[in-house]
Amino acid sequence: MMSPREIRVYRDLMGDNETWAGETRTVLGAHGIVMLNLIGSPGAGKTRLLESMVKPLEGRARFATLEGDVETTRDAERLGALGVEVSQLLSGGSCHLEAKMVHQALTDLPVDNLDLVFVENVGNMVCPAEFDLGEQAKVAVLSVTEGEDKPLKYPLLFREAKALVLTKVDLLPHLEFNLPLCLQNIRTVNADLPVFQVSAQTGEGVDRWTQWVVEHLTNS
Amino acid sequence: MMSPREIRVYRDLMGDNETWAGETRTVLGAHGIVMLNLIGSPGAGKTRLLESMVKPLEGRARFATLEGDVETTRDAERLGALGVEVSQLLSGGSCHLEAKMVHQALTDLPVDNLDLVFVENVGNMVCPAEFDLGEQAKVAVLSVTEGEDKPLKYPLLFREAKALVLTKVDLLPHLEFNLPLCLQNIRTVNADLPVFQVSAQTGEGVDRWTQWVVEHLTNS
Repeated sequence: MMSPREIRVYRDLMGDNETWAGETRTVLGAHGIVMLNLIGSPGAGKTRLLESMVKPLEGRARFATLEGDVETTRDAERLGALGVEVSQLLSGGSCHLEAKMVHQALTDLPVDNLDLVFVENVGNMVCPAEFDLGEQAKVAVLSVTEGEDKPLKYPLLFREAKALVLTKVDLLPHLEFNLPLCLQNIRTVNADLPVFQVSAQTGEGVDRWTQWVVEHLTNS
Repeated sequence: MMSPREIRVYRDLMGDNETWAGETRTVLGAHGIVMLNLIGSPGAGKTRLLESMVKPLEGRARFATLEGDVETTRDAERLGALGVEVSQLLSGGSCHLEAKMVHQALTDLPVDNLDLVFVENVGNMVCPAEFDLGEQAKVAVLSVTEGEDKPLKYPLLFREAKALVLTKVDLLPHLEFNLPLCLQNIRTVNADLPVFQVSAQTGEGVDRWTQWVVEHLTNS
């Protein structure tokens, strides 16, 4: 069946993205910067996690954040209020960040004075996992309120990630969330994925997670 | 800058989707069926909401569900266990359902014996809102654990929706969630959007929401 009015769209799908991701890797390498790409659902607690790391990273890593959102500059404002070097990347309706925009934002940062860049991707558990932004590692952010079956239902992110931060663990007493089953589901998809149980609310687990980030800097 | 190896991809982007959505509208109209398209983040509680409606809809509407997921048949199994007529739509890595697959699944249902079809879209607050599946109404599903800023950050869904179900309200005492601010944010994006506060856990609000669905059947 044909549509009444066809619009043919040419897209240079992944090719151009890979080129820009490569350019970003060059910049990161030249300046000894590690870039981590945080991916998770809307409301998984990605911005809150970054807020909770400002103090623990003080004196250990000079970092900036690139905040990806469909609309608004709210997340960048939250981090800017804490004195973080931050830029807002508006995806213009797109459900993920692409490498070109990240590259442009990265090169506008004071790269000579940075050790670490966090990219907070658009809130979405599916599409962002498909796009290489030139980062050293993707980090999956999953909140315990989302249910223990998510690693099985959206496996790509959990396969691609080098670490998983399980957020909002302070809410566990109020949920029917089966933590051992969730961990088992994560292992099914990615047996070696390190899992950090964190509550940005109480501070639980933030130091251990920050330690992983800092060790990642040294080993990269 | 050109990529080293360019792959030109032709896609008939929305044209074909609209054609299939139109075909679905014809089938729904011919059989007097209302189709509602539930859209929300992973873990927003869409499947749980459908489970909670099985009893309240008994004797009031003959319904089926089409469960959209990237992978696994878990959600369909959950509803099938409750005796619901259900099909699983696997998006094959895609972050949203498209009209063609929904149309095929719909026409495989016993349409002569149905009043109502729920489509549970892939867990994603962004892309599914862009795709017409031929439904009478999109329904936004937002959990209170996701934060009160989501209507501003992901406005398209809240603009497109004809109703919003705010789920997991039993968790409100344990969250910093600002309910009046959330409602204000919703009004900013869509002043007329009816909001149903629901806890599938305690049953709070399920009857009121079910009533909206049943009235929607009569008025369509």
